[in-house]
Amino acid sequence: MTTWEEVRDNKLATQKVLLKDYLFPEDKVPSPQELNDVTNFIDSSSLLTPEEKKITNLTVTELLKAYESSELSSVEVAKAYFKRSTLAHQLTNCLTEIRFDEALKEAEELDAFFKQNGKLKGPLHGIIVSFKDNLNIKGLASSMGFVGLANDIHNEDSAFATLIKRLGGIIICKTNTSAGMAYSETTNVLWGRTLNPLNRQYLNVGGSSGGEGALAALKGSCFGVGSDIGGSVRHPAALNNVYSIKPSSGRFPKYGTVSGQAGQESIVSIYGILAHEVEDLDFVIKTIIESKPYIDIDASCIPLDYRLITLPEKLTIGIMKSDGLNTITQPVLRGLEMVKNLLIEQGHNVIEWEDTYFREIRSTIYPFYSADGMKHVKGILEKYNEPPDSHLVNVLPACEDMLVSDLWKSQKERQALAHKYLELWNNKGERLDAIISASSPYPACLWNRIVPQPLNSIWNALDYTAGTFPVTRCDINIDKPQERTEFITESDKEVYETYRDNLEKFQGGPVSLQLICNKLEEEKCISLIKYVSGLLKESK
Amino acid sequence: MTTWEEVRDNKLATQKVLLKDYLFPEDKVPSPQELNDVTNFIDSSSLLTPEEKKITNLTVTELLKAYESSELSSVEVAKAYFKRSTLAHQLTNCLTEIRFDEALKEAEELDAFFKQNGKLKGPLHGIIVSFKDNLNIKGLASSMGFVGLANDIHNEDSAFATLIKRLGGIIICKTNTSAGMAYSETTNVLWGRTLNPLNRQYLNVGGSSGGEGALAALKGSCFGVGSDIGGSVRHPAALNNVYSIKPSSGRFPKYGTVSGQAGQESIVSIYGILAHEVEDLDFVIKTIIESKPYIDIDASCIPLDYRLITLPEKLTIGIMKSDGLNTITQPVLRGLEMVKNLLIEQGHNVIEWEDTYFREIRSTIYPFYSADGMKHVKGILEKYNEPPDSHLVNVLPACEDMLVSDLWKSQKERQALAHKYLELWNNKGERLDAIISASSPYPACLWNRIVPQPLNSIWNALDYTAGTFPVTRCDINIDKPQERTEFITESDKEVYETYRDNLEKFQGGPVSLQLICNKLEEEKCISLIKYVSGLLKESK
Repeated sequence: MTTWEEVRDNKLATQKVLLKDYLFPEDKVPSPQELNDVTNFIDSSSLLTPEEKKITNLTVTELLKAYESSELSSVEVAKAYFKRSTLAHQLTNCLTEIRFDEALKEAEELDAFFKQNGKLKGPLHGIIVSFKDNLNIKGLASSMGFVGLANDIHNEDSAFATLIKRLGGIIICKTNTSAGMAYSETTNVLWGRTLNPLNRQYLNVGGSSGGEGALAALKGSCFGVGSDIGGSVRHPAALNNVYSIKPSSGRFPKYGTVSGQAGQESIVSIYGILAHEVEDLDFVIKTIIESKPYIDIDASCIPLDYRLITLPEKLTIGIMKSDGLNTITQPVLRGLEMVKNLLIEQGHNVIEWEDTYFREIRSTIYPFYSADGMKHVKGILEKYNEPPDSHLVNVLPACEDMLVSDLWKSQKERQALAHKYLELWNNKGERLDAIISASSPYPACLWNRIVPQPLNSIWNALDYTAGTFPVTRCDINIDKPQERTEFITESDKEVYETYRDNLEKFQGGPVSLQLICNKLEEEKCISLIKYVSGLLKESK
Repeated sequence: MTTWEEVRDNKLATQKVLLKDYLFPEDKVPSPQELNDVTNFIDSSSLLTPEEKKITNLTVTELLKAYESSELSSVEVAKAYFKRSTLAHQLTNCLTEIRFDEALKEAEELDAFFKQNGKLKGPLHGIIVSFKDNLNIKGLASSMGFVGLANDIHNEDSAFATLIKRLGGIIICKTNTSAGMAYSETTNVLWGRTLNPLNRQYLNVGGSSGGEGALAALKGSCFGVGSDIGGSVRHPAALNNVYSIKPSSGRFPKYGTVSGQAGQESIVSIYGILAHEVEDLDFVIKTIIESKPYIDIDASCIPLDYRLITLPEKLTIGIMKSDGLNTITQPVLRGLEMVKNLLIEQGHNVIEWEDTYFREIRSTIYPFYSADGMKHVKGILEKYNEPPDSHLVNVLPACEDMLVSDLWKSQKERQALAHKYLELWNNKGERLDAIISASSPYPACLWNRIVPQPLNSIWNALDYTAGTFPVTRCDINIDKPQERTEFITESDKEVYETYRDNLEKFQGGPVSLQLICNKLEEEKCISLIKYVSGLLKESK
C-alpha cells in the first residue's frame, strides 16, 4: 500500500518537474538566515531581466494598455510571471499546483485572438492570476494541504475559474493554504510551511490564504483569488502588507471549490481578492461585478450591478482598538492612530467604536466551523492515514457532530445578533460609513503561536464587506511595548507577552489595517480603502 | 392545571370579544350549505353599506388619492375594513389575532397627521393590511395554530410590521395558518379550519397562509403578508384565485417571526404578498423595495434597489405541465393551455418545459423541513399536552434530529442542483424570461386530501422569484377528466382518481397559475404577471 509519505514526495517531485524550466539555481536564492526580508529582493537582484522586472511591476491597467498597443504579448508577460512566481516560491514556498504549460497555451491563444481581431478578448485579457488551492481548476487537484486529496484531479473548473478564463485572464498556479483552511497559519503536511516574505525567519505568513499573501507581496501574479470564512483573505493580506477585499456573499462566484466544511452554510465562505496595488484591487473588483456573474456563472450570485460611489464629504468612521479578546500590540496601535489622526485632520467624524456583541457573536459562530465533528476532514485524513497538522491535532478529537436542532438554535441567535448589529451600525441616526480596526493584534504572529481573531470572523458572521490595506512596518525602536499588568483575557496576556518577550523577531513586521463597510458595500469599501491609502501616501 | 381545551376556549372567547362591535347576527350570515361560493356575497348583500362596499373595493392607489383629496379619512376606511374582515371571518374562519382597537388609534393618528401637515405620512398612509399569524406584532401572540403559544405575547414588532407602520400602513388583524406552517391546508387545533370562499363545503383553502388567501379573496384587507417556505404564499393565493408574489431572499424583511423550524436556513423562508388586485400587488412590492429595508429594518435584506423593467418584445417562456410527481388535472391544464395559446398568439417563444432535476431537488430539500426532528414543534405541543393536528400526527414520530454532517451533504447537493438549474435556465443561449406552471395539480384539494407539491417548493430550493395569478374557474361541463390508465406515481393516480370520482365537488373551483422568474427578478415577475393577466382580461 502507498504510504502518505510516498504520495507527498511524489507530489512535491511532480511540482518540481512542472517548475523546472524556471527554477533558479539554489545558490542564487538566499536562505532566510542570509536574507530575512525579501520584499525587495526580486526587483533589486538580477535574477529577472530588467524587462521582466518592468513587466511584473505594471499595473493591470498599464498591462492592458501595453497589450492594446502591441507593446507586449501575452506570452512574454506570462513567461515573465512564470519566472517571478517561481522565484517567489523558492523564497517562500507559496505555490502548490502549477499550470505554466496550460497558461502558455492560453497566452498564445490570446495573442492569436488579438492578432486576428485587433482587440482584446476581454477585460482581463492576458492578466496573470493566481488561485488559492481550494478553487477547482480542470486538470488539477485541490488538496488544500491534505495528502489524501493530492491526486484527486478535478474535471471541471470552479465558477471563478470559468469567469476568469472567459474575461481573458490567465491562471498560472495555485497557492498554499492551511490544512482544510482550518487555521490562520499556512503550514500543512503536504506542502509544508509558506514563509512570510517580510520576515522569513520568525513571522507567520497568515492564513488560510497564506500562499496568496506571500505571492502578492512578491508580485508573483497580477492578483490572487482567496477564500475567507473567518479572515482567510484579510489576515494573510494584512500579514503580507498587501491589499484585499472580502465581499459579502452573492457578489463573487464561489461554486466548484473544496472545503474542510463542505456544504456548511451557517457562516458564509466568501471568495475575495488580494493584490499588491490598490488600483489593481479596485479594477478587478469592478471588472468581476460588471461581468454579471449571476447570469450564467454562479447560482449563488445576486443581480446587484456595479454602482458608482461618491463618498460623503464628511465620513463617519468607527475606530476599534479591541475585539474584546485581544488588545492590539504597539505597532498596530500606532498604525491605527496614524489613520485615525489623518481622518480627524480631514475633518471627518471619527468615533471610538466598542466591541459590543463581539463576545456573543463569537460564541455563537465558533461551533459552526466544526459542526460536522470534522467528519469531512477525518475522512480525508483516513485515506492514506496521514497525520493531521499540529494545529488540527488538538481540535479533531474535541469536535462533535452537532444535532441540527442545536445548529438551528445557534443560527437563530446569529440572526438576532445581526439584527442588533444593524441597529448599532445605524448609530442613532449617525450611520457609520465604515469601521477601521486591525486584522491581527500582532503585526504577524510568531510561528505556531496563532491566537483566535474575532477581529476578522465577526464580519463573516454578519456578512459585511471588509478589506485590508498596508499602513507601515513595525519599528521596534518606536513600537516599544507599554507597561501592562492587567489583561482582558488569557489570550490578551499571551499576545502582550509574546510581543514583549520577542521584540526583535517582530522588527520590520507588517502593519496593515482592516476597513469594514456594511453588507454588499463593496464599491464603498474599495473607495474608502483607496481614499485612506491616498492620505497615508500623502502623509509620508 | 389548565387544560389545552381551556386555553383554546379562552382564546376563542377573547377573539369574539375583540370582534364584538363588528360581528353580524348569525342568521344574516349564510352557512356553507346555504351558500357554498361566497366570493360575491359581501358585495351583493346589504350587510355592508354602499359606502363601505365602495371603500373596500378601491385599489391602494385610489385610496391614497381619496386620502390626499380629503374625500376619505383613515378612520372611515379602517372601520369599513373592520366590518368587511369580520364578515369574511364569519364566512370562512380566516382571522386569528384582532387589533381593531390599536388600528383605530393608528388611523386617528394618521388623520391628525394629515390634518396638521397637509400631506400623507408615508406611501402606505391608511392602507389596511393583514398579517399571517407568524409575523410578530407588539402586544399579540404568534400562535401559528398551537394552543401552546396562544398566550405568548410578543413585545416587539417583526421587521415587516415596523416597516408597514413606518410607511403609514394599518395592520388590523392576523390570519390563520396550518399548525407550524407545516402543511398546505389551513386547519389546526387552536383556531380550527379556514374555509375556501370559492367553495366552502368541499375545497381546501390552501396553506399555510390560508387565512390570508381567504381574506384576500373576500377583500378583507388591501393586501396581506404571508410566508412561503414551500409554497405557503403561492398555494393559498392560487386556491383563492388572488394574486401573489414570493420574492427571493433578501428583498423583503423577515426578522421577528415565529416558525415551526426556528433557525432553519437550509431552505429559505420568504415573506411575500397576497392581493386581490394585480395593481395593488405591483404597487406594494414597489413601495416595499423603494423603502430600502436593508438600511435599518432587516439585516437579511440586500441593497438591491427597485429597477424599472422593460419587458423584451419577444418573450421566452417555458410552459410546464408536470412536476414529475403529479399530472395537473383537466381544469388546470385548460388554464395553462389558455395562457400558452395567448402567448403564442402574441408571437412569443413558448417552450414545453420539462421537470428536469425536480426529483433530485425534491429528495434533497424535503429532509430540511424537519431536520431538527421537529423538536421545536414537539416542545410547543408539550406545554399543554395538546394533540397534534391530524396532518402532524403522521409526520412527528418519523422525524429524526439530523446530524449536521448529513445536513451539510444535502446542502452541498442543493448547491450543485442550483448550479445545474441555472445552466438549464440559460437554455443554451435562449435564456428563459419565465416559466409558467400550476401551483396545485387540482383547482384545490379536497379537505384532508393534500398531496406533495414540488411545483412550489422547487423554487424555494432555488430561491427564484415566483408569483401566482388567477386564470379562470373550474367548469365540470368542460373540464371532464380524460381517460387515463397510466400514472407516473402513486400520488399522480390519487390526484387523478380524486378529481374523477368527486367531480361535482370541484365545480367553480379556482384555476390559478404560477409564474417563475430567476433569482431576485421581482420587478420582472410582477411585470409579466400584469402582462399575462392583461392578455387574459382582453381575451374574455
